[in-house]
Amino acid sequence: VEKPRSTFGMDLHVDLRGPLRARALEAALRDAIASGRLTAGTRLPSSRSLAADLGLARNTVVDAYDQLVAEGWLSARHGSGTAVADHRPGAPPVRDLPAVAPRWARSYAFDLRPGGPDLSSFPRSAWLSASRRALSRAPDAALGYGDPRGSPELRAALAEYLGRARGVRTDPSRLVVCSGFTQAFGLLCRALHGSGARTVAVECYGLPELRQIVAGSGLRQATVPVDDQGADLRAARRADAALLTPAHQFPLGTVLSPTRRHDALDWARRHDALIVEDDYDGEFRYDREPLGALQGLDPDRVVYAGTASKTFAPGLRLAWLVLPDRLVEPVMEEKTLADRQTGILDQLTLAELLASGGYDRHVRRQRSAYRRRRDRLVRAVGEVEGISAGLHALVPLPDGSSEDRAVAVAATRGLALEGLDGYRARSVEGRPALVVGYATPPDHAYRGALEILAEVLDHLGCEPATAPSMTRRAGSSLTAS
Amino acid sequence: VEKPRSTFGMDLHVDLRGPLRARALEAALRDAIASGRLTAGTRLPSSRSLAADLGLARNTVVDAYDQLVAEGWLSARHGSGTAVADHRPGAPPVRDLPAVAPRWARSYAFDLRPGGPDLSSFPRSAWLSASRRALSRAPDAALGYGDPRGSPELRAALAEYLGRARGVRTDPSRLVVCSGFTQAFGLLCRALHGSGARTVAVECYGLPELRQIVAGSGLRQATVPVDDQGADLRAARRADAALLTPAHQFPLGTVLSPTRRHDALDWARRHDALIVEDDYDGEFRYDREPLGALQGLDPDRVVYAGTASKTFAPGLRLAWLVLPDRLVEPVMEEKTLADRQTGILDQLTLAELLASGGYDRHVRRQRSAYRRRRDRLVRAVGEVEGISAGLHALVPLPDGSSEDRAVAVAATRGLALEGLDGYRARSVEGRPALVVGYATPPDHAYRGALEILAEVLDHLGCEPATAPSMTRRAGSSLTAS
Repeated sequence: VEKPRSTFGMDLHVDLRGPLRARALEAALRDAIASGRLTAGTRLPSSRSLAADLGLARNTVVDAYDQLVAEGWLSARHGSGTAVADHRPGAPPVRDLPAVAPRWARSYAFDLRPGGPDLSSFPRSAWLSASRRALSRAPDAALGYGDPRGSPELRAALAEYLGRARGVRTDPSRLVVCSGFTQAFGLLCRALHGSGARTVAVECYGLPELRQIVAGSGLRQATVPVDDQGADLRAARRADAALLTPAHQFPLGTVLSPTRRHDALDWARRHDALIVEDDYDGEFRYDREPLGALQGLDPDRVVYAGTASKTFAPGLRLAWLVLPDRLVEPVMEEKTLADRQTGILDQLTLAELLASGGYDRHVRRQRSAYRRRRDRLVRAVGEVEGISAGLHALVPLPDGSSEDRAVAVAATRGLALEGLDGYRARSVEGRPALVVGYATPPDHAYRGALEILAEVLDHLGCEPATAPSMTRRAGSSLTAS
Repeated sequence: VEKPRSTFGMDLHVDLRGPLRARALEAALRDAIASGRLTAGTRLPSSRSLAADLGLARNTVVDAYDQLVAEGWLSARHGSGTAVADHRPGAPPVRDLPAVAPRWARSYAFDLRPGGPDLSSFPRSAWLSASRRALSRAPDAALGYGDPRGSPELRAALAEYLGRARGVRTDPSRLVVCSGFTQAFGLLCRALHGSGARTVAVECYGLPELRQIVAGSGLRQATVPVDDQGADLRAARRADAALLTPAHQFPLGTVLSPTRRHDALDWARRHDALIVEDDYDGEFRYDREPLGALQGLDPDRVVYAGTASKTFAPGLRLAWLVLPDRLVEPVMEEKTLADRQTGILDQLTLAELLASGGYDRHVRRQRSAYRRRRDRLVRAVGEVEGISAGLHALVPLPDGSSEDRAVAVAATRGLALEGLDGYRARSVEGRPALVVGYATPPDHAYRGALEILAEVLDHLGCEPATAPSMTRRAGSSLTAS
């Protein structure tokens, strides 16, 4: 007598031939239960009878029932056979992304938003070769849980490099490799909070995420005014630490003047406070030799923070802190709790690139490429504000014009732009401007991006770039307290 | 007239020949100031006179002075020349590591501590090849700031793999790639706390770091008793979430029984709570097919967490969360604040290994290697406790003997061991035992490690392995509420 494939009214939808019959039967039953085709409490046929129905060995069915009982899909009660266990049926629905897509989810033909290097210049083959050399040399233990400060090789290479290239005074034991500056600053805030700190001062122009991190660590915020001499700590209220961008204020693009450097250190000493030096693009200076880090002047009062996000790529998530002695252990503890350590393979690769000179070569190449791009930006839009450095410049808009409108007009032409407003602390008012990231586009798209930018400025009534005598200069009206 | 190399009483200790003379002069002055050889207020000679002294062009000296003024080492006041600025001299002293060196800083000839795979089996060349393939295919944008959930390629590959190998029901949009389970659990705790959760229940045996993470997120803890059926949530107090290790309790090695799986889901529904399923070694089961994840039974009540730390290497810092809809955005926000995203290169490589079958091949190879190791452990020490799975087993010690003594005796013979005690919640009492990580040593050291372990047990008066009828069995005396 030929029976239907199932006595309990469900189509198993699987091919039950072959050596994986128990697995296939399990999968079919699991799907039937998860999708709601078999409901809680439904009695299953005996293994003997299902085996006969399906033309399987009885043991195959017994094994499948056992597996599903152990996993909790079925329940087996002595004397009452096997039944579908109580459960919530149905896989959850596929959900859409948040309605307002964040930056990473939107694509434009051209992109002049700040924050990143030219990703097309990432030295893929140098990276892969360094990776191969580093991994072939690493002992097995390097792949296990290690020092929360990161790879000793990378810390040694960074201590040497930072001393030579940035005037940082340290040794490898006071370096902590982090997963990007975002993490580094978060660890530092939590370590400070744990050591009794209550307030961190931030520049009145800066990345809003950093303010969120301060708040998320349980710390209060104070605001430091910024003008064309950089951050002015004399006017800052009492705080336990101040986050500064001395080499190249982000996003205004000013440099911390010699007087202000001393004011900052004086402030730190007077308040027994700390300066956090965010040296995000300190390698890139085009008009003169880069200034050495503030940290070199007082390694006991200044935490130095560097990153590979601007020199190589943000996707690497590699940054480093150089700490005063008293902060090393608290930051190590926070790092251990956060993620134990940063992924080791990229650390070993970066160490190899630093030691072999590949890092310096890449930075030199990018420095001259970005210098040329900045020159082309100035030619296209007239004078920009901020020193000749880094990966971005401030392009002022006419008084009374709207940043949002500029961004919207650019978007209709396929160009992504960002206004200055998003970087202002709430209390600050200032002239409208765009923060132009001239490093962002690949080479082939740079000319097109600049053309659209010039059109947008023209549309808003900015002076044409062909009238250099009328170009705008860095003015104190952009700055505020 | 030949003058000395310096008119102001310091030896510059540099070779001032060659094209980098201004840099060398700067470096010499910076060092002299930092080391205290030149003290604050000291007037420097005029650029004209120092240039003559040193046989340099005057502009070289002017450039060096300018640089050091800009950096804050020197101050220049109109009419009064250039002087050494006020500063804190001296590089900070090199510090030693903490006196009690943590695990990663101590080396033993043999290591049977739990927590990691055999690092010598890391498939270096397969990893590098996959890395090359992945990077050659990745678009430039993949190297920039991206989706905080991680690479879309990796999330798609994981969703497929977890469904197939672990019975996880999800889609890529609900996966978040994290930097190890430590981070994953921390993000989850903070997201739960932010959504109003107050208490997280943890098993009464488990990793102490995870309890620290709960506390660090501002959450209270409750303790779940564990016995030979796994965690017993019926007895758990009200909590908003419970962290469980259903496939292989860490460190007791039991499996969550079918009844307890249902009890856990019932508990979660009754209390409107969440189960966090830490599936740290779910791929490794030796006596039968691995149990599918608890998550498959109720994807809306269970967060699934997996990791590459046991299958590949902890140094990669790669783990993943599979979330119910309502937690996706809160966890994305926490991830953004924590480090924006996990490093992209390892993610792309792991995606490539999953898609190409290299991941499955490696897991299969390791599964049979670890199964053989577990068999050898059982032969060497007699029956062990816990199911035949994972990378560790519990080796009970005689009643009344001391874990610390066993660990100390082993250490004198060059073997690193760990007792069970460090994994117990404070309120719990139980029989002494060792948590033996049989995956930890490289192949060539495994025999030696087992020999020392057997000697140590013999020393403590454990029954010899040659008397199988007297071997210890998993007993309820190890467990507690």
